[in-house]
Amino acid sequence: MIQQIAVQTHSRDQMIDVTAKVEEIVRQSPSESGLAICFVPHTTAGITINENADPDVKSDILSVLRERIPQSDRYAHSEGNSDAHIKASLMGFSVQVMFEKRSLVLGRWQAIFFCEFDGPRSRQLLVKLIPHA
Amino acid sequence: MIQQIAVQTHSRDQMIDVTAKVEEIVRQSPSESGLAICFVPHTTAGITINENADPDVKSDILSVLRERIPQSDRYAHSEGNSDAHIKASLMGFSVQVMFEKRSLVLGRWQAIFFCEFDGPRSRQLLVKLIPHA
Amino acid sequence: MIQQIAVQTHSRDQMIDVTAKVEEIVRQSPSESGLAICFVPHTTAGITINENADPDVKSDILSVLRERIPQSDRYAHSEGNSDAHIKASLMGFSVQVMFEKRSLVLGRWQAIFFCEFDGPRSRQLLVKLIPHA
Repeated sequence: MIQQIAVQTHSRDQMIDVTAKVEEIVRQSPSESGLAICFVPHTTAGITINENADPDVKSDILSVLRERIPQSDRYAHSEGNSDAHIKASLMGFSVQVMFEKRSLVLGRWQAIFFCEFDGPRSRQLLVKLIPHA
Repeated sequence: MIQQIAVQTHSRDQMIDVTAKVEEIVRQSPSESGLAICFVPHTTAGITINENADPDVKSDILSVLRERIPQSDRYAHSEGNSDAHIKASLMGFSVQVMFEKRSLVLGRWQAIFFCEFDGPRSRQLLVKLIPHA
Repeated sequence: MIQQIAVQTHSRDQMIDVTAKVEEIVRQSPSESGLAICFVPHTTAGITINENADPDVKSDILSVLRERIPQSDRYAHSEGNSDAHIKASLMGFSVQVMFEKRSLVLGRWQAIFFCEFDGPRSRQLLVKLIPHA
């Protein structure tokens, strides 16, 4: 079964902590342990893991990506969002997080971030649980 | 069981849409749903997901990587392909795509791209299906 | 079951080949084949696959990342390691490697590298085996 999490983004680029929503799905898992696959079905948004304690980490990541891969450059693609396609591939489109006792196994400072690069938009995140065999 | 897809590349860097070939493997899956693991067993080629509708997206991704990480730089590795090793790690060596009813669950604009960074070469892509439990 | 590999790093940025340690876990797997999930539970270290034959490949990857994303920049995060958070997201926090006959299925030149970006530190790598169904 594939579950969907709706993600509403509010600016052109934004990292949104979706950990609690993935944790909610894991809490209702039929199996106690396994692997949670989080997949972004878009081409101008990605997903990553990083620190959530200090919000400056998110803004530093977005600002470095913005400076190194600016929105306006000599791109061939005419929609004005080539930078977003590139940033999404750099972050990647899925993360795999183990769970045990129906709880995500994340490091102390880790959170799962949906990465918007061409918002604001209504996005979705797909989650599938692979039970522990 | 691990299945192999042969990929012949034709230029130094190239993104090749392998979605139809992965879909073909999924169509013959013994289980209706699960996870398709696509793995690149090379060190100068990677794999990513992105848009296939406009071919300019592919060429923008390759051209940004080429400009930011040029083939000629002050590299220590003497084979002249350090840039390719770096680009492969940036894109990553595997993608995980869910499938249902023996069909890949991809977003409307998504395709799976084998990313050659040191071609032309004869490459392979490994695919393993993890059935839905 | 989740297994832990202790990784002691010795410099600020370092790529450490952990293939033999993951292989050791796979050798003792109850199932003959499956998928080994390697997950880094940190936010300033990542994991990737690349070439191990020539150590210059590792140093070229680290040096390109160091030049493109310098430690000192106009970062907001005050701990002086924003570059490490960004590099970790670029490399990613997990790799998935298939195994057969209790042996990792890697390309001839491939090795799994723990990537330290804010060391030296005592780190860990989590490994979970998903058996082949």
